[in-house]
Amino acid sequence: MSNPLHDQNGLTEKEFLQRYNPETFDRLAVSVDTVVFSIDSRIQTQNYRKLDEQKLTVLLVKRNEHPYLGRWSLPGGFVGSQETLDQAAQRVLHDKTGLDNVYIEQLYTFGHPGRDPRMRIISVAYLALIDRSQYRLMNVDTQKITDLSWCEIDFPKNDPLRLRIGDEELPSQIAFDHATLIREGLLRLRNKIDYTDIVFNLMPEQFTITHLQQIFEIIGGEKLLAPVFRRKIACKITPTGEYTQERGHRPSQLYVYRRP
Amino acid sequence: MSNPLHDQNGLTEKEFLQRYNPETFDRLAVSVDTVVFSIDSRIQTQNYRKLDEQKLTVLLVKRNEHPYLGRWSLPGGFVGSQETLDQAAQRVLHDKTGLDNVYIEQLYTFGHPGRDPRMRIISVAYLALIDRSQYRLMNVDTQKITDLSWCEIDFPKNDPLRLRIGDEELPSQIAFDHATLIREGLLRLRNKIDYTDIVFNLMPEQFTITHLQQIFEIIGGEKLLAPVFRRKIACKITPTGEYTQERGHRPSQLYVYRRP
Repeated sequence: MSNPLHDQNGLTEKEFLQRYNPETFDRLAVSVDTVVFSIDSRIQTQNYRKLDEQKLTVLLVKRNEHPYLGRWSLPGGFVGSQETLDQAAQRVLHDKTGLDNVYIEQLYTFGHPGRDPRMRIISVAYLALIDRSQYRLMNVDTQKITDLSWCEIDFPKNDPLRLRIGDEELPSQIAFDHATLIREGLLRLRNKIDYTDIVFNLMPEQFTITHLQQIFEIIGGEKLLAPVFRRKIACKITPTGEYTQERGHRPSQLYVYRRP
Repeated sequence: MSNPLHDQNGLTEKEFLQRYNPETFDRLAVSVDTVVFSIDSRIQTQNYRKLDEQKLTVLLVKRNEHPYLGRWSLPGGFVGSQETLDQAAQRVLHDKTGLDNVYIEQLYTFGHPGRDPRMRIISVAYLALIDRSQYRLMNVDTQKITDLSWCEIDFPKNDPLRLRIGDEELPSQIAFDHATLIREGLLRLRNKIDYTDIVFNLMPEQFTITHLQQIFEIIGGEKLLAPVFRRKIACKITPTGEYTQERGHRPSQLYVYRRP
């Protein structure tokens, strides 16, 4: 830059920057926290004529340090001074969960002054979507986390968000404002499945239309009519000519995502 | 909070927080910058049979201090330690432009390490929409700004963004990465006009369908077919029974926004 103008103190931009004191303004800490969603496909062993049950889940880590020691939280960490926000989100996600090369987008930035008891921390939240069968979780940064778990989500339209790990009901056990981040992540996903193709990041490579409809239903929080859903989704998928072979069901054709 | 657990150093949460040193992690500065859009309705004085011309505009302020002295930028400022991000955005917008009680939503957070020559500054960008006829701009915080101006936007679909004040072509004259923020703001607006009602924040209380269609076209960056547009918009507006009285045109019915 070579700005020829002098300011009211007679300084050039270069002189101004040399004398600039970064302590002039309040400085804050900035963290990234990622809401990772995946689908848990439960094979119905009790009744083989029933469809597999699909559950939407979010990845949580158990904190082993203060604050909120022993509580569940989203994988997160502080933004380093030399990395972009996207790089920070990817680095932290890898360190805490082993996940790499996943679909990830910025969600929203949360900055309520009281949201962290240590100090003022602004959290830039990210949303990530994975097909669980393609990834293996592992705790790379073992100093910080004692446990990783997929937490089940129930969020029917117009109802409050419910979170559960095994038999334990979670919302009150979630650290910081992370229950709010999960809720916002799901609302973003609910909104975007109708006008983008991001849902396919949650799907295995091959799937039946019924399976895909189940995923739309749990994300949208409401049942859909099969013929309407089939018409709407037809332009986004391609039949493979292969069929499922499952006990108790008619064979169903398998489809793949058709990139636009 | 009364967390009964002790950490690996034997500390309770209260003891941990008392000894916590906020300098442990990199601290950054956080600012808010707001992309304010409005419509400039130009009455065609040359040819009274032509429709009024509509222009999408964004509000810019001329910087009177380094860095980027003399360049145009979005109204912005630093987040104070005791306010939420939304409060900071509203306070800064008021101080710099006099605007109050406008439609405003968080847009995206920009954090590239080199985006400000002073230091690492994370910018939480906001999007605001106003009906220009209802607001009067004024520079409350006169220390900082020498000039406020509405800048014309041209952004046809698949073309690059063009910005102009009078005869001056702007993109290279915009401070920081603010041209990117304006572009992202317009893409968000383009995306949301189809599935939300936010466009009505740009409209006067009463308007014709043709006027509303013109706004959809300049935001979307492409022409629309009138019958298709009318069908799509019908459920969102209510006829008033009143009509425009303009030279050279058939009277057109005036409509108001119908809140859902």
